[in-house]
Amino acid sequence: MFFGSDNQTGASLQVMEVINAANKGCAHGYGDDEWSRKAIDALKEIFECDLEAYFVATGTASNSLALSCLVNPWESVLCHSHAHIILDESTAPELFTGGARLVPISKGEGKITSGHILEYFQKAGTNFPHNSQARALSITQASEAGLVYTPAEIKAITTVAKENGLKIHMDGARFANAVASLESTPAELSWKSGVDVLSLGATKCGALCAEAVLFFKKDLAENFIHHRKRTGHLISKGRFLGAQFTGWLQDKHWIDLARNANTQAAALAEDISSFKDLQIAWPVQANEIFIVMPSELSAFLQESGAEFYQWYPDVLPPGTQLRQNEVLVRLVTSFATLDKHREDFCGLIRQYFTTH
Amino acid sequence: MFFGSDNQTGASLQVMEVINAANKGCAHGYGDDEWSRKAIDALKEIFECDLEAYFVATGTASNSLALSCLVNPWESVLCHSHAHIILDESTAPELFTGGARLVPISKGEGKITSGHILEYFQKAGTNFPHNSQARALSITQASEAGLVYTPAEIKAITTVAKENGLKIHMDGARFANAVASLESTPAELSWKSGVDVLSLGATKCGALCAEAVLFFKKDLAENFIHHRKRTGHLISKGRFLGAQFTGWLQDKHWIDLARNANTQAAALAEDISSFKDLQIAWPVQANEIFIVMPSELSAFLQESGAEFYQWYPDVLPPGTQLRQNEVLVRLVTSFATLDKHREDFCGLIRQYFTTH
Amino acid sequence: MFFGSDNQTGASLQVMEVINAANKGCAHGYGDDEWSRKAIDALKEIFECDLEAYFVATGTASNSLALSCLVNPWESVLCHSHAHIILDESTAPELFTGGARLVPISKGEGKITSGHILEYFQKAGTNFPHNSQARALSITQASEAGLVYTPAEIKAITTVAKENGLKIHMDGARFANAVASLESTPAELSWKSGVDVLSLGATKCGALCAEAVLFFKKDLAENFIHHRKRTGHLISKGRFLGAQFTGWLQDKHWIDLARNANTQAAALAEDISSFKDLQIAWPVQANEIFIVMPSELSAFLQESGAEFYQWYPDVLPPGTQLRQNEVLVRLVTSFATLDKHREDFCGLIRQYFTTH
Amino acid sequence: MFFGSDNQTGASLQVMEVINAANKGCAHGYGDDEWSRKAIDALKEIFECDLEAYFVATGTASNSLALSCLVNPWESVLCHSHAHIILDESTAPELFTGGARLVPISKGEGKITSGHILEYFQKAGTNFPHNSQARALSITQASEAGLVYTPAEIKAITTVAKENGLKIHMDGARFANAVASLESTPAELSWKSGVDVLSLGATKCGALCAEAVLFFKKDLAENFIHHRKRTGHLISKGRFLGAQFTGWLQDKHWIDLARNANTQAAALAEDISSFKDLQIAWPVQANEIFIVMPSELSAFLQESGAEFYQWYPDVLPPGTQLRQNEVLVRLVTSFATLDKHREDFCGLIRQYFTTH
Repeated sequence: MFFGSDNQTGASLQVMEVINAANKGCAHGYGDDEWSRKAIDALKEIFECDLEAYFVATGTASNSLALSCLVNPWESVLCHSHAHIILDESTAPELFTGGARLVPISKGEGKITSGHILEYFQKAGTNFPHNSQARALSITQASEAGLVYTPAEIKAITTVAKENGLKIHMDGARFANAVASLESTPAELSWKSGVDVLSLGATKCGALCAEAVLFFKKDLAENFIHHRKRTGHLISKGRFLGAQFTGWLQDKHWIDLARNANTQAAALAEDISSFKDLQIAWPVQANEIFIVMPSELSAFLQESGAEFYQWYPDVLPPGTQLRQNEVLVRLVTSFATLDKHREDFCGLIRQYFTTH
Repeated sequence: MFFGSDNQTGASLQVMEVINAANKGCAHGYGDDEWSRKAIDALKEIFECDLEAYFVATGTASNSLALSCLVNPWESVLCHSHAHIILDESTAPELFTGGARLVPISKGEGKITSGHILEYFQKAGTNFPHNSQARALSITQASEAGLVYTPAEIKAITTVAKENGLKIHMDGARFANAVASLESTPAELSWKSGVDVLSLGATKCGALCAEAVLFFKKDLAENFIHHRKRTGHLISKGRFLGAQFTGWLQDKHWIDLARNANTQAAALAEDISSFKDLQIAWPVQANEIFIVMPSELSAFLQESGAEFYQWYPDVLPPGTQLRQNEVLVRLVTSFATLDKHREDFCGLIRQYFTTH
Repeated sequence: MFFGSDNQTGASLQVMEVINAANKGCAHGYGDDEWSRKAIDALKEIFECDLEAYFVATGTASNSLALSCLVNPWESVLCHSHAHIILDESTAPELFTGGARLVPISKGEGKITSGHILEYFQKAGTNFPHNSQARALSITQASEAGLVYTPAEIKAITTVAKENGLKIHMDGARFANAVASLESTPAELSWKSGVDVLSLGATKCGALCAEAVLFFKKDLAENFIHHRKRTGHLISKGRFLGAQFTGWLQDKHWIDLARNANTQAAALAEDISSFKDLQIAWPVQANEIFIVMPSELSAFLQESGAEFYQWYPDVLPPGTQLRQNEVLVRLVTSFATLDKHREDFCGLIRQYFTTH
Repeated sequence: MFFGSDNQTGASLQVMEVINAANKGCAHGYGDDEWSRKAIDALKEIFECDLEAYFVATGTASNSLALSCLVNPWESVLCHSHAHIILDESTAPELFTGGARLVPISKGEGKITSGHILEYFQKAGTNFPHNSQARALSITQASEAGLVYTPAEIKAITTVAKENGLKIHMDGARFANAVASLESTPAELSWKSGVDVLSLGATKCGALCAEAVLFFKKDLAENFIHHRKRTGHLISKGRFLGAQFTGWLQDKHWIDLARNANTQAAALAEDISSFKDLQIAWPVQANEIFIVMPSELSAFLQESGAEFYQWYPDVLPPGTQLRQNEVLVRLVTSFATLDKHREDFCGLIRQYFTTH
């Protein structure tokens, strides 16, 4: 029962097959190979536009490299207070951007709104070079609370953001889950709604280690190759990243994988709702489930072999609070989650409640 | 009527006299001179302890160099959301520390409390290397809202901070004003209350450009000289900084200068309180006065030759808000402020209200 | 005929098999998995000592992360003027170390000697903080000229280096080739000869993308995990790196792979020596062959499908120089090089000389 | 007898007078004042062109800030192997530029030539993003060996440099001495000969702490104010820097000061030449004198109160070498050097030789 993170799975079989195929023979290094080209072609087709695409091996690199192309070292990036870039990536954004600042502009709510941005600019100082000026916004799709932004929501945010001079980055570590969740196209969820650069994650959704940085505004990519190289993220056997994306994108495989994760998450959420002492903290719209539960239950489940993390209590919805002896836990489903895993997990809960 | 900042004055005559005296003849460079030694001796006597002291020419350098000795590039510094280091020093703290992060832990209130720190640690992630860990706290004395921290308040804050593994930096750009305001010694307002490193500012309070970084915990200074040199802040004719501090500290001159600023601020606040349409936003405890006034009045005053800044509306006390057509303005008095300046300023206000 | 670089091959079949096996099922992320543990155990056995080992995906990351643990941002790293870290890794070392400097201490010769180090320290300024002080040495095994350092040579270098306060890094991108070339153990070629940290490369020698940073002085690793995370090099599905090393190290597979590369290089060098108008620039001791040839021949070979690079003329041995119409080219053999590739290559040369 | 450095003097009386005058009353901060404007006007007149001028307090800041406007963090700056920026400014250039690299392209000779640049580009790799690309050149006027570049020499260097895509920085810490030494105008020694940015130093030549960064190519200054602020080099009471330059430049005072230094250096060199056991290492063209002398004599002089430094033996002319018991020493004269200082110094030498 691995619900700790979608990075606890391996790669899907289809992805592994293409890796194995790509491994045969020799090829040019550094992305000058047929698999990388195939993957880029697939991305252009899926996103219905021309774009610049670059591959790296980690999500932290993908996000930070994108940001390094959007702001100068004396500028700032607005983001959600729960954003992965501010909570879970050490000070990588600062390092990659040469010292730019992350500014959290929300609290409590699961998603950023245009109101957060407006409020920021009403109070922000404009006396540069003294005040660091915000020049980019980063939003996460699906969000760190497991919520998805509709195209209309993205559009509303990016409109206000652009009126205030911000470039738009989307952390799409779980973009596949958002596409599978919404009845919208990848294009509608990105450039058609104002996103300039997308960090598209395959790792959590079925690849081994493959992330793409997609520049819909191609001129923003001007210095990308330099940033990637000097951060050590130019993979020499680049076809191996191209192969993962090729396998992952082929025949809507990526959506199928994400759909399984989402479906299992929805089902698990429903299962859990049936226990009246457990509380689902956020609507389950992608593949993450946040549950408020007795800390004793959490301990019992983990001791019984269920893998998951206690989560930052800061990620509770506004107005809610943990009571004494309660914890917030996060479950993440994946392409590899089976009915059996859910059933085993709920079985353990039942077992606990029977005896408590 | 220069109320824009205490950096709009020159140096006091006593400071200038010592500069002129120190200028005679030759001396070793880089701080190896009698004036620098005199200044350090004076600091030790005034702070009643042994300490490491280093001089630089700007407040931004003083603060950022201090922080560079307290945290690693992957760590964080807690501070007030209005802190000068986060609002007015571009991304200097990030640059000097190699990429460490500033984390604002308060909103609205004019000073940090131990509660802010506790609340931060209740929610903060401890999953390093993913979560950047807070390792230092910076507080400003007098605060950016013009308030002073008593020794008891500092002690309360630093006690909680140290229990959570934080080292303590004090931004003392207006430390002199705090000393003059409170019936406490420099020692009580710093190391005796748990401060590890003090950025002691003379520039705003009567020098030309002279700031001292005082390490009460001397081992924290281990790499200071390297940080100072590679940020270009090792002044070759170092005696010029030593001379300023010598002149400034001599015969409690620094306190006298600060006392004038404080006294004028208190008097000006009282004058302004007599206008019923004006509202003093924060108690005036040092040399800054925050006033909510009609924007039309603000414009009239500035056009009539009064120098001051409109201030970030974010610096209003909790619960208060600007009404339509109101602005928050900041007045700063200095050692050079005279009764006449106050009277002229209030005369202009009266003139405005007579005709409106 | 891929002689461009050993990164133009894929992974060996044995490595791929273990990757495929490791891909099954779920596992903890970030290196807390059985494959990573197996790989570390194997490294300890092979190097006959306790050590700290960390895996990353690129050689640039491996080298720069190692250096970031050896020097402060105001210090320097001595290296060969042809070192991969100074020629081929952009300014990654500067970024990872926070701004430390690379100082080339040799010219012309294919390897660093203790004399280079002595000469450096005879002339170097010691007036810190003004002069950046050298605190580490990086040597490459096999060297960028395709030469190997014997244990005695390493010992001579590291002895002088340590007497001068340097920590020792070895760039072992082709360490496997050096082990296969010399009758020495991995331990003799590293810690037994004074190496403190080894960047052990598997990528060029049969893996997909897998490099290990081995700390023989374990306390030097103190901050490694922070540097790795904030440079984006902590792979979430860490078992995939562990699996590559497990497969690569198993049953001396890594030596077998390197031996093929070396053997083919030696044979190819012999083949080429038979052409009297071609000149082998450096003794072929590992898997790189440097050839001075007519530029017209070089062009012919590349047009005929032979993959290789023209190389920096700076990498010629002291005293030699290219004549008009000559170029220096580099051929690299790999675990996948076959007799047929050599024969085809020499066939093309013969064809050229027949008609010229 | 202070011959240690020209930074061992104070400021000239004329400079001090203007500082004292400027200190009266209030003024806007951060360079928005009449003294700063006066100084900029004077610079435009003296350099016979429009330009962007910014003031800072140290030479290291002046050089590094200039370079931060010329190169990206992944690029390189060519310089002399004895350049102050590479020998005496710690790793400030790396910090300010975000990690760019300094590449020494000369050895032994006292000045850079166009040949050094050509040789560099004949060997340099152009395979970016792997190879860091050189994009700027920094030359020092007067040079670190005390030599001056004529306009023709500068023109020859910058022509080749620009053909290779380099922007040109001049470290003019002793630019005044060069102007006084050569029969050339400031314009001829800078922009008319191809210099893009000049770090013009007043500190060593009669100011307290005042350096100007002059951009003859104004668009290169685009981000200067951000770099200056975030490195802590924006002085709040900016008029104090403007005043120094105003006083220094007025009525050719700067040239008069430099001329005295140069004249005394020439005279001292002549005095010293009369001792047959002493050897002047470099022609004395500005205000530095390099002498090879018995180490015993050097010790005697220092014990007798003469201030000077032993210098890096690396700064000897090509082909020369110190014999056993010899040292290289550097004497620097200044605007404050008097005949008496020279005579006392030579008296000590005579005294030594009488008894040895």
